[in-house]
This record gives sequence, C-alpha cells and structure tokens, in this order.
Amino acid sequence: MSAQAYDDQNIFARILRGEIPAHKVYEDDAAIAIMDVMPQGRGHTLVIPKSPSRNLLDADTASLGGLAQAVQTVARAVKAAFDADGVTITQFNEAPAGQSVFHLHVHVIPRFEGVALRPHSGDMEADDVLAAGAEKIRAALPAGSPTP
Amino acid sequence: MSAQAYDDQNIFARILRGEIPAHKVYEDDAAIAIMDVMPQGRGHTLVIPKSPSRNLLDADTASLGGLAQAVQTVARAVKAAFDADGVTITQFNEAPAGQSVFHLHVHVIPRFEGVALRPHSGDMEADDVLAAGAEKIRAALPAGSPTP
Repeated sequence: MSAQAYDDQNIFARILRGEIPAHKVYEDDAAIAIMDVMPQGRGHTLVIPKSPSRNLLDADTASLGGLAQAVQTVARAVKAAFDADGVTITQFNEAPAGQSVFHLHVHVIPRFEGVALRPHSGDMEADDVLAAGAEKIRAALPAGSPTP
Repeated sequence: MSAQAYDDQNIFARILRGEIPAHKVYEDDAAIAIMDVMPQGRGHTLVIPKSPSRNLLDADTASLGGLAQAVQTVARAVKAAFDADGVTITQFNEAPAGQSVFHLHVHVIPRFEGVALRPHSGDMEADDVLAAGAEKIRAALPAGSPTP
C-alpha cells in the first residue's frame, strides 16, 4: 500500500466535483469516463472511479468490481465508436510507473493495426477533436446506459 | 465485442487445467497468478481469471470484480516483494493492442525509478530466476491468502 496520502485537490477529484470541465462520455454509480486531453491515440479515454484513492494500491477493494465493469463498458464502446482493431488498457501506480495524477484512473485506448501509441507527451488535443470523439463514444454505448 | 471465438487450447487455459507447468504465486476462486516467462521487468506477474474469455471485450461482466480484486492483491504483493517504487498494470485486447495469448490476462509489473520496461521480446527468463521471484511474491501475500 502507498504510504502517501490522497490529495483531494488533484485534477480528477476536481472534475468529479464539477469544479472544472471535462468531455464526459459515461457516468454510473461507480465511475465516470472522460476524454484524455493528452491522448496517446485517437479516442483515448479515462475511466475514473468516484471512490477516492491515490491508485489501485490503496483503493477500497469493494469498489473495484464497479470500476472494472465501467472499464469493460467503455472499452467496448470506444472499440465500436472508432472501429478499432483492439483496445489497450493501462493503469499506473506511482510516478515511476507512469502515474501523473494521483487519483486512481484507467486508460482505455483504441488501437489500430500498424499504429503505435504516441508518448504521453503533454501536447493538448484540440477541444473540438475531443468533443467529436466524446460524441462518437456516447453514441456507441449500449442503449439504456447511464449517461452524463 | 470480439467476433472471434475462444480457443480452449491456448496456453493459459492449459495452465489453468494443470496440463502444463507454471510458477504459480496466487490462486483464489476467481483467478490464478503466475510469473510471466518473458518478463518486461523483474517480478512481472500475470493474473489470469478462471472464467474463459478471449479478452476483456467478451468477458462475463459478473466475473470482473473477482479478477480486479485478485489484481489488487497481486499488485500489493509484487510491490512489497521486490521493494518496488511503483506498479504498472496493462491488459491488451486483440493483437493490434499487443495481445498474444487469447485468454484474458492482466500484466502486473513492478517498476523501479529510472528503469524502463523491456520489450516483450520473446526472450525466456531462466527458470531459477522465475522460481525465486515466485517465492518472494508468495511470501509477500497477506497472511491467510489463498495459495496455490
């Protein structure tokens, strides 16, 4: 378990509280999903549990089922939305593993034959591209899915 | 959802049935964990659900909670066992996303400050190194954990 504390001023906690905007594509009791503003590929989405934890290591075990189900729902939707050939899922715990925002989150990234992931470089995607991607994903969710 | 069928002759299905050996570090009702024989880093472990599916896209949604809990248990244990600075978790769906064995599995990889992951190259790790790693992880599981 992480020895470091959860800081509720992290950007995902602020998005969960509605203090700052995000392109939200999905929301249920356990989690939200939003577009990653520094995408490693077209349609790169983040699934963020509502339950506060720094990462998987200190997460409430009872909350993980709901998170995993949201990840599956979003993975199916992004694959359909972008007609992708596959989906890469990553989750990083602590900075040496690649974590940069310290609220548990899962990356869901559509993959295409012959297209490598871009580095998580810090280049911001254009807002209209993110908005269009979010709309495609929302449209690909199963009928009756909870929506933001 | 994947259009391709599950093939029960894949290597993880055979390991689950005990037909071929593996360095098993953990087992509960939902999943087993074994050492990856082509590790991307020291202590690279795989969590494999007992429920058959090709990957996350076609997995039984009800089975995902148990899998996620096993991943958390193993992530905590590998971090402690190798005194790691972090843990990277990856899960690949279909070949263009990096999947090479078509039974759902989750990679749990201890990470160390300044040490990059190796490519999943096909170089086999020495059996005694895998055996020693497995022993460390088993010893780092919480007291009373189910063991293989």
